[in-house]
This record gives sequence, structure tokens and C-alpha cells, in this order.
Amino acid sequence: MPDIHIGLLLFPDLTQLDLTGPYEVFRKTPGIVTHLLAPGLEPVRAESGLRLLPDTTFADCPPLDVICVPGGPGVNAAMEDEELLRFLRAQATGARYVTSVCTGALVLGAAGLLQGRRATTHWTVHDLLAAFGAIPVQERVVRDGNLVTGGGVTAGIDFALTLVAELLGASVAQSVQLGLEYAPAPPFQAGTPQTAPAEILQAVRARGAAMRARREEIIKRVTERPGLRPGPARGHKAP
Amino acid sequence: MPDIHIGLLLFPDLTQLDLTGPYEVFRKTPGIVTHLLAPGLEPVRAESGLRLLPDTTFADCPPLDVICVPGGPGVNAAMEDEELLRFLRAQATGARYVTSVCTGALVLGAAGLLQGRRATTHWTVHDLLAAFGAIPVQERVVRDGNLVTGGGVTAGIDFALTLVAELLGASVAQSVQLGLEYAPAPPFQAGTPQTAPAEILQAVRARGAAMRARREEIIKRVTERPGLRPGPARGHKAP
Repeated sequence: MPDIHIGLLLFPDLTQLDLTGPYEVFRKTPGIVTHLLAPGLEPVRAESGLRLLPDTTFADCPPLDVICVPGGPGVNAAMEDEELLRFLRAQATGARYVTSVCTGALVLGAAGLLQGRRATTHWTVHDLLAAFGAIPVQERVVRDGNLVTGGGVTAGIDFALTLVAELLGASVAQSVQLGLEYAPAPPFQAGTPQTAPAEILQAVRARGAAMRARREEIIKRVTERPGLRPGPARGHKAP
Repeated sequence: MPDIHIGLLLFPDLTQLDLTGPYEVFRKTPGIVTHLLAPGLEPVRAESGLRLLPDTTFADCPPLDVICVPGGPGVNAAMEDEELLRFLRAQATGARYVTSVCTGALVLGAAGLLQGRRATTHWTVHDLLAAFGAIPVQERVVRDGNLVTGGGVTAGIDFALTLVAELLGASVAQSVQLGLEYAPAPPFQAGTPQTAPAEILQAVRARGAAMRARREEIIKRVTERPGLRPGPARGHKAP
């Protein structure tokens, strides 16, 4: 069986765990070859300060079986980065799966790849997917045809195991899961707006309000461009 | 309140997710300052191939509140790396918490920091902790006094949230959890030897047998050194 090539985008101010979670899953999977993609090979500084080194430039990237876009504050610039969006659209054309983790879905949206599709993203911007013509779905991992999107940050691990099972079967995914001892036991149940204490949710929302407002502005600008106006969503009833 | 300094060790062939999971948690926590530690500032290549850049040298490291050792194949060399062990022992003397994720516990053991203490590590080497005079405990995160150890790879996220709650309170940890949307939903239940299908467990064990044998040899060599022979474990009944 030929190797499966999975490309993960690196860009400044990404949330590194959006990428490093799935990356570890893919790297532990026999038969998968990964590419850490950027325009050049200089270190890329994540939101957290962690500096990661790309290993493949956009120009040198082979046709990918899977393209994956992580999220983070850097998504704001990425949504208007024409070089990145062009690369993404070109790879998406031939890819078996087009994917994202967390707010990486907004970049897929800006590239016009979410129109009429069921998708998810980080809870703070979940409803904004609709602006790209997508159908926001509140699940940890959402699949619609060849589009597979994961929720916020840590959903990347669930996303990656789901994708490995799709690509190579459940047994392979289970072996990887056992190797990563992925039997999560969060010390609290505050991981979603539905389960977090009300005052915690309010505080986290307040801290993220400015970021959300900036994203709304950018999405408005991006979706007003010719060619990116959302068409009627497939399978979505008009109001 | 003064900043809390947490240092995370980088070494060649570490499992990057052992480090990047907790790192994301710590970086999202106000009041925590992190240090990615190595002898020098050159990129460190993880087991997976990912190259990470340290930001603090051993020589420039301030006294740490928390020292954290991730695991990975590189633990084998780290268990006999005198410079690394010296650094670890020196920091452990003044630290509020001495910690590890995954097989990082073996490095703590080699530094003589586990004697008589309850601890955990990756399931493939869990019983080997006893060779260091530790008391192996099968829990996701184990605390014994100022020693906090996490299980394999992905346990690092549970470990880090537990530690943040210890250091700064449950509300702070819950806010970070919500930001990371940490409400895990593994697509399979194969994350532990107890829950994985028998044939998956057998295959993963077989693939890891040579690595386990190498580790047994190294641990034998390390624990035969003068000064590291395990004393009687505290609170542990002699057979």
C-alpha cells in the first residue's frame, strides 16, 4: 500500500496543541508520512511562544492525501493570507480529506471550502461558521463527505484517531490509542460551555470578547469578496 | 503574587506530546512562566521528527518552582546523562513540585528522586518503577508529597490541569480546560491494557518488547551504581 501523505499547516500564532496532538497520532501510525508545511523553512512561533520547525515548503509539497489546518490567534491573519489560501485550495482539489482542528475551520471557510458543509470549530466561534455557508454542528468531530473537522484544541486527538480509523481501519487507530495511553481522565468537567460552571464560562467569554469581535470583522470582509459569498447550504433548510 | 516558574526538559527523541500537552496548559495559565530547557539552544529533534527550540539553557535556568520531565525513547540515554541528572537533582532540591509525564518518571528514578515514593509512568514500563525503589500506582495522575507523576503521553494534559489546580486553584484550572475545550471523546476505548482488545494489546506489547528489554538493562546498570541502590520504600510492606 502506498504511503498516505498528511500535511499540517504551520503559521505564526497557531495554537501548537491543535497541531502537535494530531501530529503525534499520525507519526505513530505506520504508513502515514507527515509534512509540516510553511512557505519557508524558518522556525514558526506558536501563540504559546513555542518555536516549531517546518519540514516542507509549500513549493516542495507533494500532492497530499490529507490537508489539515490547525487553529489559534494566527487564524486571523491566515484568513486573509492569499498565498496560504491558494495553497490550501490547490491541495484541497486533489486531497482525499480536507480537515481542520479548532479555529482552523475558519481558514477552510476563508478558502471557500466549507460552503454547504457540516462542520465544527472551537466553541467561542462555532456559530460564525454559518457566515461561510457552513452548517455548524456541535460534535467533537464532524464528518461531511471528505471534510473532517474537529472542535477546540484537544479535540485534535479525537479527530486524528477518527481519521486514522477512516484511512487504515479501527485496529490501527486502537493500537495508536493504546501506545498514547489515551484514556483521558480530566480532573474537572469544565471542558464545554454546557458543563463549565457559569461564572467560569462568563469569565472566559469576557476575556475572549475582543478576539471574537476581530474575527467577526475579518469574516465579514472575507465573505464579502467576490466568489466567497456563501451559496445556499446543501441539505440546509432556508429559513 | 510572584510568577510560578515551570521548567520542561527537552532532550533528543522525547515524545513531543508528553511535553506539548502540559506546555499548552501551563502557557494558557496566567501567572505561570515556562522554560523549555536543554544544555544549549539548538533545535531538539523529538522521536516523531518534530524539531523544537529550547528557550533556556541549564546554565541560565532560574530556580524552578516545578521541574517536569517528559518521556519517550530518548529517556534511555537521559537515564545515563550525568549533566542532565545533575541539573535535575539540583533543581529538585528547591522545587515545590518534582514531576514527570510518561516514561519521564524513569529519568526521575535514575536521578534518585523516586525512592520510597508512589508514582506512575507509561503502562509498558509501569512495574519497572519498583527497581528505583518507587511504589508503582496505577492511576492517571499520582501525587506523593511534592512528587506528581502522570501516566503515558496523553496523561500529560490531565497531569497539568491537576497541577494548575494545586498551584492556583480549581477555578483557574477549569478556565484553562474550557479554553482548550478539553472534553475528550475518544472514538475507541483502547487506551489502556485493561480496555484494549486482547489482540491489539498483544501486538503493541510485541512491538515494544525490544525497547522494554533495553530499558531493563539500563535500569539495572543505573540502579547498581553506588548511591542509587533503592532503600526500603516508605509505607511499602516488605515481601
